[in-house]
Amino acid sequence: MSDDVLLYLDQNNQTAIVTLNRPEKRNAISLKLIEQLDQIIDQLHRDQQTKLVMITGSSPAFCAGGDLNDFHGDIGQEEAHHLLKKMQNVLWKITTLPMPTIGWMNGLARGGGMELASACDFRFVNETGTYGFTQGQLAISTGWGGGTLLYERIHPQEAYYWLVNADVRSAVQLKEIGFAQGVFSSEQLEFNHPLIEPYIKRSYEQLRHWKSQWLTNQDLQMLKIRMDKEVEACSHMWVSREHKEAVANFFKRNEK
Amino acid sequence: MSDDVLLYLDQNNQTAIVTLNRPEKRNAISLKLIEQLDQIIDQLHRDQQTKLVMITGSSPAFCAGGDLNDFHGDIGQEEAHHLLKKMQNVLWKITTLPMPTIGWMNGLARGGGMELASACDFRFVNETGTYGFTQGQLAISTGWGGGTLLYERIHPQEAYYWLVNADVRSAVQLKEIGFAQGVFSSEQLEFNHPLIEPYIKRSYEQLRHWKSQWLTNQDLQMLKIRMDKEVEACSHMWVSREHKEAVANFFKRNEK
Amino acid sequence: MSDDVLLYLDQNNQTAIVTLNRPEKRNAISLKLIEQLDQIIDQLHRDQQTKLVMITGSSPAFCAGGDLNDFHGDIGQEEAHHLLKKMQNVLWKITTLPMPTIGWMNGLARGGGMELASACDFRFVNETGTYGFTQGQLAISTGWGGGTLLYERIHPQEAYYWLVNADVRSAVQLKEIGFAQGVFSSEQLEFNHPLIEPYIKRSYEQLRHWKSQWLTNQDLQMLKIRMDKEVEACSHMWVSREHKEAVANFFKRNEK
Amino acid sequence: MSDDVLLYLDQNNQTAIVTLNRPEKRNAISLKLIEQLDQIIDQLHRDQQTKLVMITGSSPAFCAGGDLNDFHGDIGQEEAHHLLKKMQNVLWKITTLPMPTIGWMNGLARGGGMELASACDFRFVNETGTYGFTQGQLAISTGWGGGTLLYERIHPQEAYYWLVNADVRSAVQLKEIGFAQGVFSSEQLEFNHPLIEPYIKRSYEQLRHWKSQWLTNQDLQMLKIRMDKEVEACSHMWVSREHKEAVANFFKRNEK
Amino acid sequence: MSDDVLLYLDQNNQTAIVTLNRPEKRNAISLKLIEQLDQIIDQLHRDQQTKLVMITGSSPAFCAGGDLNDFHGDIGQEEAHHLLKKMQNVLWKITTLPMPTIGWMNGLARGGGMELASACDFRFVNETGTYGFTQGQLAISTGWGGGTLLYERIHPQEAYYWLVNADVRSAVQLKEIGFAQGVFSSEQLEFNHPLIEPYIKRSYEQLRHWKSQWLTNQDLQMLKIRMDKEVEACSHMWVSREHKEAVANFFKRNEK
Amino acid sequence: MSDDVLLYLDQNNQTAIVTLNRPEKRNAISLKLIEQLDQIIDQLHRDQQTKLVMITGSSPAFCAGGDLNDFHGDIGQEEAHHLLKKMQNVLWKITTLPMPTIGWMNGLARGGGMELASACDFRFVNETGTYGFTQGQLAISTGWGGGTLLYERIHPQEAYYWLVNADVRSAVQLKEIGFAQGVFSSEQLEFNHPLIEPYIKRSYEQLRHWKSQWLTNQDLQMLKIRMDKEVEACSHMWVSREHKEAVANFFKRNEK
Repeated sequence: MSDDVLLYLDQNNQTAIVTLNRPEKRNAISLKLIEQLDQIIDQLHRDQQTKLVMITGSSPAFCAGGDLNDFHGDIGQEEAHHLLKKMQNVLWKITTLPMPTIGWMNGLARGGGMELASACDFRFVNETGTYGFTQGQLAISTGWGGGTLLYERIHPQEAYYWLVNADVRSAVQLKEIGFAQGVFSSEQLEFNHPLIEPYIKRSYEQLRHWKSQWLTNQDLQMLKIRMDKEVEACSHMWVSREHKEAVANFFKRNEK
Repeated sequence: MSDDVLLYLDQNNQTAIVTLNRPEKRNAISLKLIEQLDQIIDQLHRDQQTKLVMITGSSPAFCAGGDLNDFHGDIGQEEAHHLLKKMQNVLWKITTLPMPTIGWMNGLARGGGMELASACDFRFVNETGTYGFTQGQLAISTGWGGGTLLYERIHPQEAYYWLVNADVRSAVQLKEIGFAQGVFSSEQLEFNHPLIEPYIKRSYEQLRHWKSQWLTNQDLQMLKIRMDKEVEACSHMWVSREHKEAVANFFKRNEK
Repeated sequence: MSDDVLLYLDQNNQTAIVTLNRPEKRNAISLKLIEQLDQIIDQLHRDQQTKLVMITGSSPAFCAGGDLNDFHGDIGQEEAHHLLKKMQNVLWKITTLPMPTIGWMNGLARGGGMELASACDFRFVNETGTYGFTQGQLAISTGWGGGTLLYERIHPQEAYYWLVNADVRSAVQLKEIGFAQGVFSSEQLEFNHPLIEPYIKRSYEQLRHWKSQWLTNQDLQMLKIRMDKEVEACSHMWVSREHKEAVANFFKRNEK
Repeated sequence: MSDDVLLYLDQNNQTAIVTLNRPEKRNAISLKLIEQLDQIIDQLHRDQQTKLVMITGSSPAFCAGGDLNDFHGDIGQEEAHHLLKKMQNVLWKITTLPMPTIGWMNGLARGGGMELASACDFRFVNETGTYGFTQGQLAISTGWGGGTLLYERIHPQEAYYWLVNADVRSAVQLKEIGFAQGVFSSEQLEFNHPLIEPYIKRSYEQLRHWKSQWLTNQDLQMLKIRMDKEVEACSHMWVSREHKEAVANFFKRNEK
Repeated sequence: MSDDVLLYLDQNNQTAIVTLNRPEKRNAISLKLIEQLDQIIDQLHRDQQTKLVMITGSSPAFCAGGDLNDFHGDIGQEEAHHLLKKMQNVLWKITTLPMPTIGWMNGLARGGGMELASACDFRFVNETGTYGFTQGQLAISTGWGGGTLLYERIHPQEAYYWLVNADVRSAVQLKEIGFAQGVFSSEQLEFNHPLIEPYIKRSYEQLRHWKSQWLTNQDLQMLKIRMDKEVEACSHMWVSREHKEAVANFFKRNEK
Repeated sequence: MSDDVLLYLDQNNQTAIVTLNRPEKRNAISLKLIEQLDQIIDQLHRDQQTKLVMITGSSPAFCAGGDLNDFHGDIGQEEAHHLLKKMQNVLWKITTLPMPTIGWMNGLARGGGMELASACDFRFVNETGTYGFTQGQLAISTGWGGGTLLYERIHPQEAYYWLVNADVRSAVQLKEIGFAQGVFSSEQLEFNHPLIEPYIKRSYEQLRHWKSQWLTNQDLQMLKIRMDKEVEACSHMWVSREHKEAVANFFKRNEK
């Protein structure tokens, strides 16, 4: 059975590596993938050995966003809400994992792929990648709670600005606004990489403490409420005329 | 009748342009102007067509602050409180408008002009302008709630530092600390300007959602309480010996 | 009697200068020093003349952290909690002083020295110094509440990242992330120094207002709770095997 | 033109009396009534003479709830949301009026009538009336935000209990749980009535202060969010099979 | 295998009945019981059929508190913290179950038994039972977070008062202070009992909504922090001389 | 030297008894008394032996409120603010004492005397006394923050109602609304009194924990802000025409 998400537990480094594994689809997030990811994250919530979680994609892309075969333009509002809620639930669980999480963004990310990255505590980005909260271009908003999470990762003013502009940015730009903590050149992930090494050296207890300190610094209950509002707003826009037109145009452009 | 504030509703772009129109006074904010601005903002609160509001000034200045003919040094504490409250009320209404707001800072801003700009969601600044929260130089503080708003727009540490230093800064410096989201060269405002175009392209529903998300991210009740405290503190300093001396010195310097 | 902390009240400038005075120990914080500092801060809480407090060290260092003679590796958890609590108490009192406070970081700071600096409102740093939250290298965390305070001084994302990395940084890096508001070259502190002058010029009432505005912007009750959690977590890690090993290695390295 | 809501401004006592005036419909709340009530409350928000607002009904009932001709069982979810939102908006405005408000409950109240009463600061009840949050019996919940408001008026535990039980209670029971502040026998409202007299005697400034103190004691932003969630939940249940059946049964029972 | 906790899923009424089943020990909470209860609550969190959960005991007692064989006086602070944390975790999960929960208190409750009852949304009590937060008599405090929960169930003033007094109360007294919502005479639980019937009649969606409204009304993040503090305080008092003496006296009294 | 406030430290029971000692003035609170009380409370904040503080008055009255010789009708707004602030400061310190505090209300209390009682954690009242927040009758409001504290002691709805009504109530009524925890007949205070005995029996550590739990349950920062607003509102009403008339009438009535 081929899996759409791979989990590798590196016991030597007490690190879990979660890999989105649909490289031919640029790791687009299908309903099947969501289910598998959900189970893996549940397992990590119960895990008492792992001190670090890394989320990455099968190269060359990190994640192209929601798979349009599942999240397509014709579903109704109720159904859209139902589907968006599923992945919101996963992002919430990633956000509240008891150990630090790193989004190792090995390449391109768009839309929902950026939301997934925003659910991680830290983000390291490939210097050759391009990255964009492009939902705005399709007449919708972020829909899994990732826009809300972006507000926690960078200054709210910057988050609001990016979501409206919906533009694609470079690795260096991501570091400048604080979305990425580090930039790497396109080699393999190694645990002695200068960006990863400090995490590997810290103890289990240290890393759990720092994660707890990070979570306590946030108002998690309000965060959840705001993520809920985002899902509702997005499912509402899903059935708008503007969204349907934007999707049609998107396919027309891609056909040529 | 010539108006001190102009409202232009561009129905094509569903954009309202509010222009401070006392160019000979560098758009200083008089009591009469406050009243007109108040009515225009009330109208925009009820507006269900407009998706974007821009606030700007009749060139060359954006806004020189409070008009010293109305906000002069001899008024008592009770009276100062009463006058400051009027404009605080307008800044509060601008802050809570249901659509995104852009401060299109076409030129110089000082004191209260910066407070007005801080009430907008975004700020784009003319590269040749100079900008300063200069209230501190006159032995008072911001007095319309704009210092409190500054705390929401840039990192609180930066806000506190600027208010104490009370220095004048360039357009580039404003972008560096995140107060301005973009810098433009001194041409006319056009809706296909790269800074404005994304807003025009987004739908009414998208923009209202993002504004709502931005507001929900803030603790508005506490924001209002902090703005109230600012008005009280400023009206208290208004009648201090230090303020009276600073105003006298200011006029002496300007006479020469 | 020679004092480990000096208090100089400059009545001309209404400024209090608090100097850590154990230059031969790089101003390491002993229990005796804590007691003296505590009394001085209590005095400043009652002070109704002073408009500015500066905290600095007897050159060349600012503060090397906790004195290992008092905060050594062999004490038990209960005792560690008791000792850490003492200095946490002082940092809390510094944080809530009614006037602005400046950490004038005349040179090197490590570990607890950085926590002390984080309790100040502003930090100006010597361009030749090096600065690091290095607690993480010793298998513990910050333990006086200073990690929690760091979350308030720079973006939480940056704070979390620095605490995990536990690396040493330059003056310029501190300014880039907003931890330092200014960098000075290694001359004497003078009140007409461009970094200090604005503070000296402002009135007593202005400075107290701005400090109050700064404090009201924070959730102080939650801040205290988070500082308490930090003390507990650190005293828990204090007795871990990893900490004892790290301390042993530290001494081995330093012996050579 | 006969009005569905009457406004009487008693200038002697600086009191506004708002009367629901559809006695033949037991003052059921129709869309037309909502519109008139909305305008009256807007007027009272701007009023700077009135120190007290009383809301009552044309006898014998206080208010039977939403008028089933407008809020009927066949409307869809989107439409239900739209209609419920209208009255939620009015309840929010009543809640935040700047002067004390008294619900003078001259007789029976059910469902939405109780929600309206909950938006008032105080409630005085006719000893012969019966009162019930009976929405639960119809397989829905409160839908105008009034359930949320009930949580603020009595202990949350009691509110939760009443909403689930959906039972009808007597005047004395209302006083026991603190929902009513006083009980009157079924005579005319007079300003020298012992329950009203103290309000009439207090000054404008006193009453506005106490109202402000009452509002500041609540977290209004969170209150609004919770009211929004209530509207959404109710409009969702509106289209449930259980609701349609309950409505059908209700009419069947009433026919007999 | 005989179970210490029984789970009965009544599919007709969509109700789960959880029964503490150590009648010979007055249903005292042992470590083994905690483990079984934990698993059952986990199952109910995932359950999407059940609309109501009832927690009760095998008669005649509801629950005598922690089993002194496991929670005995000689364990150290670290160990006490570890054991208390286990049951706190279960109480937290009960508190946040997605459906309403009823503590059907069939008889006597003391100490930890009261904490368990406090984790339920509602409490109905046997008129012949006696009930007490008696922890205070043993020189400790509540230790599973139940004291914190009591603050949410009755007025904080009453909670504080009861915890200090540590007295035993009757069913009627419990109803007076609002801890119990209803009193029943000592017959069997039946679903057509007037206290239970309304819950059974409501729909799944209604009950989930009301539970969600109840939870949203609380600050769950702060609730968790306060529960954590309680566990720490209690484990600290566990090793005090006063506690050891009180336990010794308790056994002496019971021997006679 | 005869003192206006007596402090008796009962070392046997580890209890401090603070007695207002101006029986001929019904223990009215003068500026001199405030100063003495302030010093005593400061001492109790540092005290590490005392486990309980009781505040009472020299019989027959508990406290008649502010002494009109100091808090008289002719002082200006600024001065009123200054004087009110002094006692607010003391009430705040009492509220945040680290050990439980009991207001042993040996007799009549009015106005500011009720505010003082509200700053205590618990209140026991003499069955023959009468008690009233009567400030409203003098066209002002509570002015030391005691109205705000009342909101924490009883249900906010009840607090709002009492402050507007400004009526005098009996001991039994106080117990009914939860303002008093117990009623005693007019005998001497004894430590084996059933109301006091439980406190005396509990350990130092228990009582400090329960007090801490009580304080953590409140939002102290917001409490302080609300108390500040109360002082400002009251000092504003102090100079109103209505207040001056009410004071004049008060003296006229008392002359006869």
